[in-house]
Amino acid sequence: MLHEDRLLPTDPATRAIARRLYAGVQGLPIVSPHGHTDPRWFAENHVFPDPAQLFVTTDHYVFRMLYSQGVPLEDVGVRGIDGAASEVDPRQVWRRLAEHYRAFAGTPTRLWLDYSFETLFGLTERLSPDNADHHYDVIAESLQRPEFRPRAMFERFNIEAIATTDGALDDLRWHERIAASGWPGRVIPTYRPDAVVDPGFPGFRDNLAALAELSGEDAASWSGYLAAHRKRRAFFKAHGATASDHGHPSAATADLSTAAAQALFARVIAPNPCEEDRELFRAQMLTEMAAMSLDDGLVMQIHAGSFRNHNPLVARRFGRDMGADIPTQIEYVRALKPLLDRFGNEKALTIIVFTLDESTYSRELAPLAGHYPALRLGAPWWFLDSVDGMRRYRQLTTETAGFYNTVGFNDDTRAFCSIPARHDVARRADCAFLAELIAAHQIDETEGWELARALAYGLAKAAYRL
Amino acid sequence: MLHEDRLLPTDPATRAIARRLYAGVQGLPIVSPHGHTDPRWFAENHVFPDPAQLFVTTDHYVFRMLYSQGVPLEDVGVRGIDGAASEVDPRQVWRRLAEHYRAFAGTPTRLWLDYSFETLFGLTERLSPDNADHHYDVIAESLQRPEFRPRAMFERFNIEAIATTDGALDDLRWHERIAASGWPGRVIPTYRPDAVVDPGFPGFRDNLAALAELSGEDAASWSGYLAAHRKRRAFFKAHGATASDHGHPSAATADLSTAAAQALFARVIAPNPCEEDRELFRAQMLTEMAAMSLDDGLVMQIHAGSFRNHNPLVARRFGRDMGADIPTQIEYVRALKPLLDRFGNEKALTIIVFTLDESTYSRELAPLAGHYPALRLGAPWWFLDSVDGMRRYRQLTTETAGFYNTVGFNDDTRAFCSIPARHDVARRADCAFLAELIAAHQIDETEGWELARALAYGLAKAAYRL
Amino acid sequence: MLHEDRLLPTDPATRAIARRLYAGVQGLPIVSPHGHTDPRWFAENHVFPDPAQLFVTTDHYVFRMLYSQGVPLEDVGVRGIDGAASEVDPRQVWRRLAEHYRAFAGTPTRLWLDYSFETLFGLTERLSPDNADHHYDVIAESLQRPEFRPRAMFERFNIEAIATTDGALDDLRWHERIAASGWPGRVIPTYRPDAVVDPGFPGFRDNLAALAELSGEDAASWSGYLAAHRKRRAFFKAHGATASDHGHPSAATADLSTAAAQALFARVIAPNPCEEDRELFRAQMLTEMAAMSLDDGLVMQIHAGSFRNHNPLVARRFGRDMGADIPTQIEYVRALKPLLDRFGNEKALTIIVFTLDESTYSRELAPLAGHYPALRLGAPWWFLDSVDGMRRYRQLTTETAGFYNTVGFNDDTRAFCSIPARHDVARRADCAFLAELIAAHQIDETEGWELARALAYGLAKAAYRL
Repeated sequence: MLHEDRLLPTDPATRAIARRLYAGVQGLPIVSPHGHTDPRWFAENHVFPDPAQLFVTTDHYVFRMLYSQGVPLEDVGVRGIDGAASEVDPRQVWRRLAEHYRAFAGTPTRLWLDYSFETLFGLTERLSPDNADHHYDVIAESLQRPEFRPRAMFERFNIEAIATTDGALDDLRWHERIAASGWPGRVIPTYRPDAVVDPGFPGFRDNLAALAELSGEDAASWSGYLAAHRKRRAFFKAHGATASDHGHPSAATADLSTAAAQALFARVIAPNPCEEDRELFRAQMLTEMAAMSLDDGLVMQIHAGSFRNHNPLVARRFGRDMGADIPTQIEYVRALKPLLDRFGNEKALTIIVFTLDESTYSRELAPLAGHYPALRLGAPWWFLDSVDGMRRYRQLTTETAGFYNTVGFNDDTRAFCSIPARHDVARRADCAFLAELIAAHQIDETEGWELARALAYGLAKAAYRL
Repeated sequence: MLHEDRLLPTDPATRAIARRLYAGVQGLPIVSPHGHTDPRWFAENHVFPDPAQLFVTTDHYVFRMLYSQGVPLEDVGVRGIDGAASEVDPRQVWRRLAEHYRAFAGTPTRLWLDYSFETLFGLTERLSPDNADHHYDVIAESLQRPEFRPRAMFERFNIEAIATTDGALDDLRWHERIAASGWPGRVIPTYRPDAVVDPGFPGFRDNLAALAELSGEDAASWSGYLAAHRKRRAFFKAHGATASDHGHPSAATADLSTAAAQALFARVIAPNPCEEDRELFRAQMLTEMAAMSLDDGLVMQIHAGSFRNHNPLVARRFGRDMGADIPTQIEYVRALKPLLDRFGNEKALTIIVFTLDESTYSRELAPLAGHYPALRLGAPWWFLDSVDGMRRYRQLTTETAGFYNTVGFNDDTRAFCSIPARHDVARRADCAFLAELIAAHQIDETEGWELARALAYGLAKAAYRL
Repeated sequence: MLHEDRLLPTDPATRAIARRLYAGVQGLPIVSPHGHTDPRWFAENHVFPDPAQLFVTTDHYVFRMLYSQGVPLEDVGVRGIDGAASEVDPRQVWRRLAEHYRAFAGTPTRLWLDYSFETLFGLTERLSPDNADHHYDVIAESLQRPEFRPRAMFERFNIEAIATTDGALDDLRWHERIAASGWPGRVIPTYRPDAVVDPGFPGFRDNLAALAELSGEDAASWSGYLAAHRKRRAFFKAHGATASDHGHPSAATADLSTAAAQALFARVIAPNPCEEDRELFRAQMLTEMAAMSLDDGLVMQIHAGSFRNHNPLVARRFGRDMGADIPTQIEYVRALKPLLDRFGNEKALTIIVFTLDESTYSRELAPLAGHYPALRLGAPWWFLDSVDGMRRYRQLTTETAGFYNTVGFNDDTRAFCSIPARHDVARRADCAFLAELIAAHQIDETEGWELARALAYGLAKAAYRL
């Protein structure tokens, strides 16, 4: 299924250039500075349970498409929080994937799955109802073998470093276990404090209590609350973290006086704060986090603009992160201004901004990143982590921001097997883009080589301080 | 003028693939599930009057471009509602088209006209001031011949089914006449209730009175009003309708309690309701229509986001639909939520959403359609019904929603002769897109064949239940 | 560095077509109807000071990228208004450009600089730290030669006419000096009244006093203020102006009654008018300017949607126009309506609208320009004046507005040496786009020739009445 020239330009001369560029980056180690793998996998190194768990039931890209085509989430083994029955036979789940596999034609999910099936399990025939059982058997048997355990796959994938994403209250026990194990794989945490920063987060007040407990700070006072963050960031940093991550509904930032921030904090920790206060508090906290980043050197990531849990029925029955998050229109120029007014000119600070709204690439984000020393553009995110998505990203940002205000690729995934597939797509897409610039004589091939390595490896490593 | 490879990719290898795909779909019957042809044409089967009427005076794509270039609407034979004189000699109108024909270079209108001129009338030289009279004569003579009558053209176009768009108050007499005639052409109505749903529609209160009269229901009460809709939908369905259509300024939906809806209804049928109430009523009615669709099986189409009659001078002098409708920014994620909260998970319901705002493709519509079982993406609409418009549609929606959450092409036209031209453009554009996926080894050619047939024929037929 | 086929399509057959088209327009004179060159250059015809001044310190495209990569503005010789020291050695500035030259890979700035270096100074090796001094020396020596003086370059660039942009209070002394000199170069002013139209402009009230002084009108009364504008416009027109230009934060227009406009004027000339009044006044003035254009024949340009001086630190230390202007979301359909309601149907009026928000191309601007006789689409502006920016512009506007509702290219630059480079990029990009239409058999090559000439030369000349 995997043609060696896949995703490269079709014009023969341009394809030849792209091949040469790709040959130079294909084998580079994977730097994965942002993602959602489970550190427990690498700590325990257990066998992955079965093909359905590995590829369907835990991958919201996969089951959201199946759901859109009329497949109930129960039928692909997603367990409801309402206790309702769901499919327990992984082979049945697998057959449902096979039955609807054509729905993925033209999607990145299809590229990732085909890549995994062929490179990991030697399956060269496209998944279909006819071969579903065979594929299932091959994968299921393989998973029992030592070379398919998490650490072995990590090494096989040639991962130089991978960052997980961890709540501020996480005890990082699995990261500790990995470190204590002597296994040399570099698995580092990322400080993601949404649960103690967003007053709209479920259990916010309880989370603050836990934060106080963990940090030994008075998290009910503004200064204590900030001190608690500083301690937790230090704890994460001591466990290898080089970055924080912030998932907010909007990109709003604020820079209040201490007195105003104190008063706001008092309002949002009281029961039922109004939405304006919640938004203002999240906004203020982005600026506070930037201030801490300037002190402790953690790179700051802002992932803004997703309407989480848009489908209340799915949320009620299956919980969060069930494929029902939808991007929304977003504004950055005014929203980021308070933060940039204060810290945008700091060369020692790195703020990486992501978007789900492509209309902001050329209009807002490339012009901002092409001016502010502290600002960098994150990789095409989530729905945009695709061949055409990457092409548009480069087409819409390069002319204003260049390549060196971007930070390479990140896979942002909890689907472990898709990691090499995703990096491979990104490397091919970037080589295709560079080959087009070379074929149009905008850059020469020597520069292309340097850029291809930077996009595949160097920029991520440098920007995330890995 | 019509090169056999037109609109196919320029890279020779990719073009060869596209040719093969296109050869497989070129001759498929036309399924036209949404459009604005006049059922009277097929009922009466009269001769079309003259070339100017057929191609200029009745086609707002054509006369809006001429108007933008300084040609008064009077000069192309558009009759003013103010009684002012307009050009009565169709040959003069035709000459004006010829004189400005270069203004259409690069537009889909030019593709449609050239296609019609060559395939219907054998005119292979591009229209120009020099050949205008010759073209006029050839077309005018041809129109007198039996094979250019509406039913003959319908058959020649290989139309399997065509839907017209009809007001809720329409008596469907022409559809009845067609059915009674024994002619086998399938011409079905579509329930378009804007005039009795939108309190801002001219004559809204009179329209409600007519609705009451037609349905025998008390359309002045909320429950009677809903019952009247149900009766009219049943009447349309009995005449072959499989869909309703809703043209709203925004995509707002609402899901009010019965009491609140009743109170709102009372306010909007009173004189001069405020704009907030009008908008809320339209929003509520989309949800009511979805509820009825779930009962009666009509597919629901939402065409939102056009600023109608933007030019008051043109509206005053020439009326509605005079080429002065302009797209506006639109938001779907929050707007559709009340409707989707209630019905988005219904597999038995099909809601097809159209947009004029391409920034919503990858940001909002593809993610929504790639999750909700009830939601499908409509074809590129109106200004976007073009070669590049179709390419962008596929590029911006496929990676998130796939192909099977889209519903094929619809021509959406009142320009009868352009129907095969438009479907031909769509088939070529989709084959070009698929050929590029095949050439990049994202899908294989066998899948491409299946997809090409689905996009050209199968998806429309299935989605619209034809 | 400059390959003869640069920026042309990569497919060999399409490239061959593009080459033929380009050969036909490559040598056409430059018509530059909108830009920011300094008329003093042509009046005095002095030697340009040094390579750093010419290419770095005065070009905000260049130093904004350097700044984003961590180079302080002082280090590239930008003089602070706070009196702080800045680099005075132009060779050091030049070396900093060379050191960071790779940051420009893929940007239009790189294309412009390479073009200037090679065609003007014979430098065929890409700028790098290794050759920085050599490049510096070659350029510095060349600048001393007579053929590198402003008038000689103007002639060498084959400029048929160039418009500068001049404040309403400008005495146009340099334009007068040019006229008096007998030198035949056509350098004309453009009426840019922002400083006396925008109540938020620094020194607005003083500017009004100066306007009164210059015009002899009572600029403190609404009618006197309008009369003053009319006189200044006549003064500009007498010095060759054919256009006005309006740089507003939004595209808002208004059409108030005389009484309401009078009252508004009284409010905005009082101290500290509120932002709503400022915005409404700017909006009203666009309509007033259109009214004057209809009388005096000046073409009206609207450049809306830039958030000026976004970075307060940079503004405080270095002033305006320091590379910190950022585009914002913009709305045209409702914003332009008051102006279009009044004047949109006037064939004798030309209003050219520019945008920094590409989402408005297909959604708003092409549909508006494809209907209103008075409206034309300006060239891709500022950040969008790039190869991909131009391709997107044509792809997103042509199908709805055609080519003849656009007005050709303008270079919009104060970087004199970049003018031929920019026009060359535009000609190549347009020939590439046309070649693709020809290769796809959408237009034929004869039409392509006519269109290529129109886009490179004819449309700008006609639209700007040059």
